Amino acid sequence: MADFILASASPRRKEILTNAGFSFETIPSDADENIAGDLSDEETVKELAKRKARYILSRYPGRIVFGCDTVVAVDGKILGKPENDEAAFNMLKMLSGRTHRVSTGVCIISEEKEICFCDTTQVTFYQLSDETVRSYIATGECSDKAGAYGIQGYGSVLVKEIKGDYFSVMGLPVAKAARALGEFGINARVVLSVGK
Amino acid sequence: MADFILASASPRRKEILTNAGFSFETIPSDADENIAGDLSDEETVKELAKRKARYILSRYPGRIVFGCDTVVAVDGKILGKPENDEAAFNMLKMLSGRTHRVSTGVCIISEEKEICFCDTTQVTFYQLSDETVRSYIATGECSDKAGAYGIQGYGSVLVKEIKGDYFSVMGLPVAKAARALGEFGINARVVLSVGK
Repeated sequence: MADFILASASPRRKEILTNAGFSFETIPSDADENIAGDLSDEETVKELAKRKARYILSRYPGRIVFGCDTVVAVDGKILGKPENDEAAFNMLKMLSGRTHRVSTGVCIISEEKEICFCDTTQVTFYQLSDETVRSYIATGECSDKAGAYGIQGYGSVLVKEIKGDYFSVMGLPVAKAARALGEFGINARVVLSVGK
Repeated sequence: MADFILASASPRRKEILTNAGFSFETIPSDADENIAGDLSDEETVKELAKRKARYILSRYPGRIVFGCDTVVAVDGKILGKPENDEAAFNMLKMLSGRTHRVSTGVCIISEEKEICFCDTTQVTFYQLSDETVRSYIATGECSDKAGAYGIQGYGSVLVKEIKGDYFSVMGLPVAKAARALGEFGINARVVLSVGK
């Protein structure tokens, strides 16, 4: 049996955990994602990560479940996935030439234990012309991504600099998550012991 | 014919340019990599990137050639690829719990034009126990990488934070490189025009 269940349909999250050497299975969560509008970005992703994990744990009792959620925030406004190309255009022009926050909440739970945390990374975009944004939208990469971009594909050329965890921007802060999984007795190939 | 020649044998560099949508071919360079010891990390990688590009251009005149080199530096000491497991162990313990520099030099040349630059990104490691370092070395990931780690694989759990360009740490600052390739009339899927 796999060590834990990843409660997410995101191929990027699956790829990050696989590349780090974890053994897991993937079962997307159908948890309610409606949330009060007055929560901060960090509160929002922690709450949604927890809901996703609890939804799967209730159906697979006895397992360890890993929930995750990512949003982009700029000017105190939270950006989720764009509904259509026009929304994607508006989001990308909002991010152009400045720094925004990408927050990823992680919640790892079993029936005995719960570890939840949030990672926030700063991402600075180049100035993007209308033509640049339109050609990027035409790649089809925007639609399933918070803030309408993916840092790992065609979107790599939009980003000038990050401060924080690249993998968190992709959707899963793997270094912090690996340490939390260690608390559940789960290790990948690299053993994260403390001490000399 | 491909738009340019990447003068590098690194599968990571190939992957980064492919994911960004560029059309190129790969021909590793046999340029002399011996270099005076008194150059800074940034001078070193720019010089080596230039040598690699020129070596290939001399054999394929009329083409556009992309040369690249990456080193890790800490305490003013430059770390290349480790010679063996012991050297890898010493490098990783040197990087443990602190911030180092990763510098990547890029040199794009044709018979008419030359654009060379360097990108430096700061990488902060978690504190790494001897056991953690040994288990990481056992993954086999160290041997062909400057500083004895790869940020994209098992090494992802060693890194606490970066400030700069993730792809530059992997070996190729793709956003800056895409803008330089644009100066040679080469574009990938995303058109990097300036203006509104």
